[in-house]
Amino acid sequence: MFNFSIQATEENARAGTIKINEELLVPTPLFMPVGTQATVKAVTPGMLEELNIKAILSNTYHLYLRPGKEVIQKIGGLHKFCGFNGMILTDSGGFQLFSLNNIFTKSELGIGFSSPFDGSKHFLTPEDIIEIQSQIGSDVALCLDICPSYDKAKNEIQEAVEKTVNWAERSIEARKRYTLNALFGIIQGGVYEDLREMCTEKMIKMPFEGYAIGGLMTGEPREEMLNIVQLCSSCLPSCKPRYAMGIGTPEDILECVEMGIDMFDCVLPTRNARNGVLFTQKGNIHIKKKKYTLDENPVEEGCSCYTCQHFSRAYLRHLFKADELLYYTLSTIHNLHFYTSLMNNIREAILKHQFHLFKEDFLRKRSERID
Amino acid sequence: MFNFSIQATEENARAGTIKINEELLVPTPLFMPVGTQATVKAVTPGMLEELNIKAILSNTYHLYLRPGKEVIQKIGGLHKFCGFNGMILTDSGGFQLFSLNNIFTKSELGIGFSSPFDGSKHFLTPEDIIEIQSQIGSDVALCLDICPSYDKAKNEIQEAVEKTVNWAERSIEARKRYTLNALFGIIQGGVYEDLREMCTEKMIKMPFEGYAIGGLMTGEPREEMLNIVQLCSSCLPSCKPRYAMGIGTPEDILECVEMGIDMFDCVLPTRNARNGVLFTQKGNIHIKKKKYTLDENPVEEGCSCYTCQHFSRAYLRHLFKADELLYYTLSTIHNLHFYTSLMNNIREAILKHQFHLFKEDFLRKRSERID
Repeated sequence: MFNFSIQATEENARAGTIKINEELLVPTPLFMPVGTQATVKAVTPGMLEELNIKAILSNTYHLYLRPGKEVIQKIGGLHKFCGFNGMILTDSGGFQLFSLNNIFTKSELGIGFSSPFDGSKHFLTPEDIIEIQSQIGSDVALCLDICPSYDKAKNEIQEAVEKTVNWAERSIEARKRYTLNALFGIIQGGVYEDLREMCTEKMIKMPFEGYAIGGLMTGEPREEMLNIVQLCSSCLPSCKPRYAMGIGTPEDILECVEMGIDMFDCVLPTRNARNGVLFTQKGNIHIKKKKYTLDENPVEEGCSCYTCQHFSRAYLRHLFKADELLYYTLSTIHNLHFYTSLMNNIREAILKHQFHLFKEDFLRKRSERID
Repeated sequence: MFNFSIQATEENARAGTIKINEELLVPTPLFMPVGTQATVKAVTPGMLEELNIKAILSNTYHLYLRPGKEVIQKIGGLHKFCGFNGMILTDSGGFQLFSLNNIFTKSELGIGFSSPFDGSKHFLTPEDIIEIQSQIGSDVALCLDICPSYDKAKNEIQEAVEKTVNWAERSIEARKRYTLNALFGIIQGGVYEDLREMCTEKMIKMPFEGYAIGGLMTGEPREEMLNIVQLCSSCLPSCKPRYAMGIGTPEDILECVEMGIDMFDCVLPTRNARNGVLFTQKGNIHIKKKKYTLDENPVEEGCSCYTCQHFSRAYLRHLFKADELLYYTLSTIHNLHFYTSLMNNIREAILKHQFHLFKEDFLRKRSERID
């Protein structure tokens, strides 16, 4: 039901393929746009298909609260519900639970929290999270984890690691009772090398289909983040996919691919688009700038996306200034195309054993900064 | 450059074709979605094309203020700017100027007003409005008119008629100096039959390519509105297109087609969509209603639009409740498809001399009200 194979490597970088149910092929390294509420903001599934996007990320915690698993089950599962036929990975919601500050009880058993929508009280166990992901039809499920932010004390992060490991064991047990294509364990431990090593060692003893590195992008310096990715990646079995959660910028993705990471997700292309920041090979463009008022060029010369094929920077700036809904769609299309192209180019480069060259060239161009 | 021909009539109802520049064919009766700021809210021009939408309405006043005619000219005209290849009719902005309440001077010469965006002062004459529409490349231009609301005294409405006629004459003169495919005069006169008759008589002496009935949908009762449309339509030359501005509901459109109206525009399909109201053959649906929570049916059974082909009412309700941008796109697609189908069906019915039957059948079904 879930298979990961590697077609080529260049030092630690890997070009692989995830195969789900013998029909869905997802090339790696892979970037998954974020579709928290069962939609990638501002684009249709038809557009995602046109953009050749093979996988998106959704969120168990959010979908559990709204619309509720009953709704998604009734409509025939997540894919049918949201009209996306590619791979849907669902984060467990550990990160969201701990960043939304609406927890009223934490116990060994699970997490009690109140809904930010209607204040209703809920209690979810690691077993519940497995059950929900099975019921809504997730392709790749994640274990419930404890995700403390960067600024927490080491002993708190150590506790989080211990509970996350315990919950991972319970998730593996629970999984036996439900249909799941794939389940990934999440490695925690903040920026502490010893905690990360301990967590990784324990996780790889459990029969997961893949491993996620969680708890990063919570405020730590970039160098520490990259150090932890490097460490975890080197401890993980090479035959299974490695997923760096919440990463990142094109520059971070390149570094992490070099360290052997296969999967990424990040709000950056979609959120930046909505905030007026458009990605190009020569750095990012802030479309609201006055200099684009009369600019008849597309966002990026030579870009083959729908937006660049049909519209000028002047038009996008006009839509942005006028707060027109079409702006969000057109900018999101471009930024997702930028990320998809980047991942395709990375994979092609690894297959040709030219990843290192590609990376250097890409980083050099990006630093030109035309904006 | 602009040609209107009639293929069939059934009593006063007409099935015709507008031809622009020997290449663009626009069938009538025609409904034009509103794209005030050079975009039909929430949909791409590609979607408009897929919906077989041949014409949209934009607004001279709005485009003059933002992004400014220089921007549109620089990018190569309105069509290239917004990526829509069909017919673009531009309203002059008379209606907007008089409803926005930011006029600081009215004179015989023109209108002085302050920009709602930055407070800057502007003065526009009927001649300026012709010049702007020529410069931005409008396919069908409208004369600057004075558009008082329904509640104004008769003498004020009479003054508005006189000035509108005078400005129409000046627009005809000004037009000789600019390239314009087509220019329509606007008939004012509120709900007063004598004023409407007088205005129509004077307008039809001027060589316009078509005639718009303006000043309606400003608060008057439906019966008075229909009475005025009937009156004006019967006074207008049958060889030229008749455009009922701002109308309307599917029900109003059917009545007006029966009276011989060829062209319509209205915010209803797009604005209603955004507010959660979806059109169906059996009345409108309010998608936020609890009854749609688990509803796996499309908005309308048998509808061939992208939204109905791919998504359930339950999903649309979820997107609406979650305030997701995709909701606006999917709901707008459905409502525009409903209007486009309605107009196609009306035209087919007239061609088959079955308009009266079609109308009765349509109105009966719509009154079933499934919601």
